[in-house]
Amino acid sequence: MTQEPVGMQVSEQRHWDRLMQMARLGAIPGDGVNRAALTDLDHQARRLLLSWALPLGLAPSVDALGNLFLRHEGTDPSLPAILTGSHMDSQPKGGRFDGIWGVLAALEAVQAIREAGLTTKRSIEIVAWTNEEGGRFAPGCMGSMAFSGFRPPETWDEVQDRDGMRFGEELARLLAAEADIPRRPLGFTPFAYVEPHIEQGPLLEAEGLDIGVVTGIQGSRWFVVEIAGKTDHAGTAPLSLRQDAVQDMVRAIAALNALTADPEDVLRFTVGRVEVFPNSSNTVADLARFSIDLRHPDAAVLTARGDAVAATVEAAMTKCRATVTETFHALPARFDPMVQDAIEAASRELGLKPKRMPSGAFHDAQFLVPLCPTGMIFIPSRGGISHHPAEYSSPAQVAQGAAVLARVLRRLADS
Amino acid sequence: MTQEPVGMQVSEQRHWDRLMQMARLGAIPGDGVNRAALTDLDHQARRLLLSWALPLGLAPSVDALGNLFLRHEGTDPSLPAILTGSHMDSQPKGGRFDGIWGVLAALEAVQAIREAGLTTKRSIEIVAWTNEEGGRFAPGCMGSMAFSGFRPPETWDEVQDRDGMRFGEELARLLAAEADIPRRPLGFTPFAYVEPHIEQGPLLEAEGLDIGVVTGIQGSRWFVVEIAGKTDHAGTAPLSLRQDAVQDMVRAIAALNALTADPEDVLRFTVGRVEVFPNSSNTVADLARFSIDLRHPDAAVLTARGDAVAATVEAAMTKCRATVTETFHALPARFDPMVQDAIEAASRELGLKPKRMPSGAFHDAQFLVPLCPTGMIFIPSRGGISHHPAEYSSPAQVAQGAAVLARVLRRLADS
Repeated sequence: MTQEPVGMQVSEQRHWDRLMQMARLGAIPGDGVNRAALTDLDHQARRLLLSWALPLGLAPSVDALGNLFLRHEGTDPSLPAILTGSHMDSQPKGGRFDGIWGVLAALEAVQAIREAGLTTKRSIEIVAWTNEEGGRFAPGCMGSMAFSGFRPPETWDEVQDRDGMRFGEELARLLAAEADIPRRPLGFTPFAYVEPHIEQGPLLEAEGLDIGVVTGIQGSRWFVVEIAGKTDHAGTAPLSLRQDAVQDMVRAIAALNALTADPEDVLRFTVGRVEVFPNSSNTVADLARFSIDLRHPDAAVLTARGDAVAATVEAAMTKCRATVTETFHALPARFDPMVQDAIEAASRELGLKPKRMPSGAFHDAQFLVPLCPTGMIFIPSRGGISHHPAEYSSPAQVAQGAAVLARVLRRLADS
Repeated sequence: MTQEPVGMQVSEQRHWDRLMQMARLGAIPGDGVNRAALTDLDHQARRLLLSWALPLGLAPSVDALGNLFLRHEGTDPSLPAILTGSHMDSQPKGGRFDGIWGVLAALEAVQAIREAGLTTKRSIEIVAWTNEEGGRFAPGCMGSMAFSGFRPPETWDEVQDRDGMRFGEELARLLAAEADIPRRPLGFTPFAYVEPHIEQGPLLEAEGLDIGVVTGIQGSRWFVVEIAGKTDHAGTAPLSLRQDAVQDMVRAIAALNALTADPEDVLRFTVGRVEVFPNSSNTVADLARFSIDLRHPDAAVLTARGDAVAATVEAAMTKCRATVTETFHALPARFDPMVQDAIEAASRELGLKPKRMPSGAFHDAQFLVPLCPTGMIFIPSRGGISHHPAEYSSPAQVAQGAAVLARVLRRLADS
């Protein structure tokens, strides 16, 4: 239990219990969670959230992208509201904290404010963004991108998951199932946005610190590369005559390794997804598809390397044809000093040890930066592990993060 | 209609109609066939074969591996029988001729013999081998390997398909469904084995020839490589600290390309199947699995290169651990001159143009070589295409192959 001088206090027990209840929706072995966006499990998680929020008097609403909002009304509802929250979807083999903690921390913080009998001048809207992970429907951050006007809301309607389900249809299914929740227009200009999230890196734990005051997020560019060759019989076709998609994929990845080499080890280059067709051991593949995830905090570096991806892949082809499609592009983001200062001050008031740090992972917060003063609160991740069932933050750590958020929200909502 | 001086004649129309009826079982777009071993479609194809064979008076039987036999009784049943046939399963995106033509050609040839009122001294057994392709359950040629004693019949019981179905259970399901067919012991020593098959290469068509007299089959070795790394977040983990399974797979394949380089272009090296886990674009992969298909007509080369695969893969690892498992090993096979001579003589008697040639693809015939005089009859493949829906041989070409087989069977069965 983290004490608040003005009587505002979060409940460590309640907050942890809610996290563990959520973790049962999509539970996988090893304490993991697989709760992909717009699945039935996602629907259930949203209903569970509502079951806690509605009795508190929070007003629900949902927009055209399925972003779910819960409003705490301020004393002057005409003022721009504070927005806070995160996402509820997980990686395919994800953990119990990434995303969902930010939503539940926002709920816990608002509940602490209300239970202390406090009012705020500005309203506070809790948000659960649709499809941040991008694990089922790529790219991620669709909800926040549409909210912020970064992309039109119909952009991803035709994106398919591995079973051929279309994003547009799955979104329509969600909205139909939530027809009882008032619909709101897409987007508004908040007074500020604050997103609590686990660190997904080892720094806070390694340095014995409690709270990360996030200074910004490195930029990300995602690509999908398709290499088209020709099937052949593995026993008969001479290698010199083949158009082997796997072999040209291997050459392309090797060439991209050279393009993205960085002696300072700041650049992040990942090929995490690979698919080969027909994927039979005695048939030369006629199609290979792989993903590229490229990140750097410096916009100039990200632009230069990212813009060279297509030419690098094409130059690596021997007999196949390559198609390179950019599916996601988020510029590096710098968070607002006012929000950073509020997070650091709240941490110190609670006797917690904060650290200013950048975020390696991207977050919905990235897309709020052009709209309003934005910031993020990190809590430690054990061993720096995330996107994995072993992802863990302790009951005390999650409660501390929620307590910091409650103070930050009060400060911003009264300013 | 190919005329036979002694009145024995195959029916081009009937033969083609049967091929096209079979092609409907598992039909896929573009005239293709997807009929994997031990599926319901495989069961249906076997029933369809029986519906043609039983009215002819052929006696069916099935062995412990599901190999299906249809016996034409000779005048001296105590003599070793001639064995002829091929397989009925297809590649996942296969065609209408690979395998199934050999079984139906054997049926057509035996039917021509019987309809001409001819008897043979030796019996003739038509065989449909279980799981030649290995597309669902790897490796291929399980039925012929068990028949010949090359591997014990229980060897593959635990092999799983992509849905986790076990070979042993699917085989038991087939045998239960065929409990009405007499069970026979596994294996016997035939007097000779003759397998008709499409060429799966372009030579016969390119040279305007009708019949390939197959001289032998190059050797094959199959491996599965598993590379185990560690998942990490694509945005946070520094590249220097990753154990990225995809990156070590790329290095392994590049190293294998160097190991298998062959200026004479005789060696065949194929990575046709690749799987990556968790296969999410923003997660560093902790597992990559790929197949190796290595072939060469010279046993010494095949042994030397194949034996170096594991060490080559291991040397390519930077941070991951590799496991290399050999799943299939077929030595190069040389076919019997007596069978080759019989095929060539029959071709010339029918006015067809034969050519002696090796086989690049492996076949069930490979495993019969140690048991008895063995040979294969090839017919032309349009464009050399196989393992693909566009695979094609004409009605005249399949009938010519069946007519050659009928003559060869008569000659061998009376010797």
